[in-house]
Amino acid sequence: MTTWHLARGFRFAGVVSGLRSEPDRRDLAVIVSDSPAAAAGVFTQNRVCAAPVQISKARLPRGDARAIVICSGNANACTGEQGVRDAERMAELVAKDLGCYPQQVLVASTGVIGRPLPMAILEAGIPKAVASAARGTVHFDDAAHAILTTDTKIKVSTREVGEHAITGFAKGAAMIGPNMATMLGFLVTDAAVAPDALHALLKRCADDTFNCISVEGHTSTNDTVFLLANGAGPPLAGEELQRFEHAVHAVCQDLARQIAADAEGANHLITLDVEGCRSDAEARVIAKAVADSPLVKTAVFGADPNWGRVVSAAGYAGVPFEEKNLSLWMGDMLLYKDGTPLPFDASTASAYLKANREVHFRLRFNLGPGRCTFYTCDLTYEYVKLNADYTT
Amino acid sequence: MTTWHLARGFRFAGVVSGLRSEPDRRDLAVIVSDSPAAAAGVFTQNRVCAAPVQISKARLPRGDARAIVICSGNANACTGEQGVRDAERMAELVAKDLGCYPQQVLVASTGVIGRPLPMAILEAGIPKAVASAARGTVHFDDAAHAILTTDTKIKVSTREVGEHAITGFAKGAAMIGPNMATMLGFLVTDAAVAPDALHALLKRCADDTFNCISVEGHTSTNDTVFLLANGAGPPLAGEELQRFEHAVHAVCQDLARQIAADAEGANHLITLDVEGCRSDAEARVIAKAVADSPLVKTAVFGADPNWGRVVSAAGYAGVPFEEKNLSLWMGDMLLYKDGTPLPFDASTASAYLKANREVHFRLRFNLGPGRCTFYTCDLTYEYVKLNADYTT
Repeated sequence: MTTWHLARGFRFAGVVSGLRSEPDRRDLAVIVSDSPAAAAGVFTQNRVCAAPVQISKARLPRGDARAIVICSGNANACTGEQGVRDAERMAELVAKDLGCYPQQVLVASTGVIGRPLPMAILEAGIPKAVASAARGTVHFDDAAHAILTTDTKIKVSTREVGEHAITGFAKGAAMIGPNMATMLGFLVTDAAVAPDALHALLKRCADDTFNCISVEGHTSTNDTVFLLANGAGPPLAGEELQRFEHAVHAVCQDLARQIAADAEGANHLITLDVEGCRSDAEARVIAKAVADSPLVKTAVFGADPNWGRVVSAAGYAGVPFEEKNLSLWMGDMLLYKDGTPLPFDASTASAYLKANREVHFRLRFNLGPGRCTFYTCDLTYEYVKLNADYTT
Repeated sequence: MTTWHLARGFRFAGVVSGLRSEPDRRDLAVIVSDSPAAAAGVFTQNRVCAAPVQISKARLPRGDARAIVICSGNANACTGEQGVRDAERMAELVAKDLGCYPQQVLVASTGVIGRPLPMAILEAGIPKAVASAARGTVHFDDAAHAILTTDTKIKVSTREVGEHAITGFAKGAAMIGPNMATMLGFLVTDAAVAPDALHALLKRCADDTFNCISVEGHTSTNDTVFLLANGAGPPLAGEELQRFEHAVHAVCQDLARQIAADAEGANHLITLDVEGCRSDAEARVIAKAVADSPLVKTAVFGADPNWGRVVSAAGYAGVPFEEKNLSLWMGDMLLYKDGTPLPFDASTASAYLKANREVHFRLRFNLGPGRCTFYTCDLTYEYVKLNADYTT
């Protein structure tokens, strides 16, 4: 087990509650801050959003959060009013044992949509999780495992700024379309940051990282990223705050990349660099269209250097351009220059896709300074298999 | 071989030119109108559009079209200025043998993107195709075969209005996202219709049919639907024209449905009825989001009644609604009513998906009169296989 550099003043637990059918599978996590923490969150932009998203959103930003409780295996989405009551009850159970208000507890869930939460399991499991929350790598590792669904590994990232640490963990795997994914991400820091500043910087960081990954473009109902800052002393300001934001950005970027690389069934991590657009926003729209194209993703899976699929996906993104504005590289091979195809060796190009777990496409426009880096993955038999048989 | 009711005054050919590597595979088609015909076309909305689309678009609508030439195996897309010269040359070759102007000839292509057309093959093949063009079901059938790519069967539909026939054929299979697909469609009629009226009605019909199908949402560079009307006598007007439009709509709808049902690797045709939206346009945006979701499509493939994926895809379409506005049926099972999940028998629901090649989802909102019927298909191992290894 790796030893993570953990932010001070937080306890973690990940326990086996029985929400999942697999025996001994950790499925319930809590993060407890010893002292009231500034808290911010960003959430799915899906109109159909899960009960835990609804209640947590209403509680943020705030300056006195004490805990986060997360269950995996059931999304508590599309569950009507009962779902909201169940999510509130999850927070109450934590609050009771911590001796705080339910409003000081945030909730996240991931798993199957449309099934009521089995509350008997959580009534027993949550007190057990809170009781076992403790400092240190072992407990942190348990929590990082307990939030996973079809992920094959935990995603963890930490950075230091001065005396402070920012520690984050996340889960991804599928139903990952930007804005955001059933990706859940949890960042904790022992720095002191005012709630509003925390919210603004988390939003900027997530926008540029978690919102620039895609597995299949299906935006989840449950996407959530929380950031808790429990540091004592005066809140960071000025240059210190800027350095802190850079570190948060780095943790988010690192976690986002790990999510794309460990997407369901993925054999390849695909990095798309789109540059030279009129704006960053236009670059992102193009990157997302390419990233979401099943034809691009199956071509990478099959090591088929069918670059026309990349160019044609850019073409239907809805951003105006002419072919002569665009050049395309795969790895360091220039395949399409200012709208004209260049001769290339198909077997070399195919070997590039076959040999590299991480592959790179660069789309260069000549329209302006806008750019975006976007991460996605290939579309494999394994993805189809995993998703053809998820609930039954 | 079925005997099709063919519009009078048209000749057809589908020949083996050698564009495709498979021996004896028909790959080059021509449609010749004995007399100058009114002609209309609708095309892909992809910014990256193929050379034949560029030149045909510039030639329409017109009153004196004589022929259409179509090659399959090479899209002539992303081929720069050489591609435009090659598409023009295809029209010239036809015009020379018919004794007409090149501008009276329309061109369509489908196949791999980014490779120059092998013009030596077409210089020999096109005269052969024009020379063999003839009336009757056998030649029509050859043409319908010659335009196919990964389709497993030809798509044909005919209707009669009074004394007139409308005969259409099409190809689809993949790179099918609305607006439109590499779908090619060719409709001919012996009715007389003025070019502008023909254009307007074709646009309306295509919008409601060919633009309401999706295989994987990747809009092709080559989508084209042409309609030629070579009837003698005064152009149809008033009620006659309306009846004619209904028949064209029926032919388009029938072909669109056949395309979705024969999509690459598809085991299921999925019909989505979205109703009760503020407008037809909003209903279509929602239908397209659901149709393009790989999670919805793999669930149908796996007979997994994971209906939350349908509801959540509707949620990220970008159309404002609340969960209580939405109810969902799968077949005749009501699964989600006004935002609340209903208990259902998962094995009965799974059996419905397993037993039916055509499956049906109905999303009912309570926001207005807007509606849309959309066709798509499931996402299978076979789709991944076919597209992982297309050019190499």
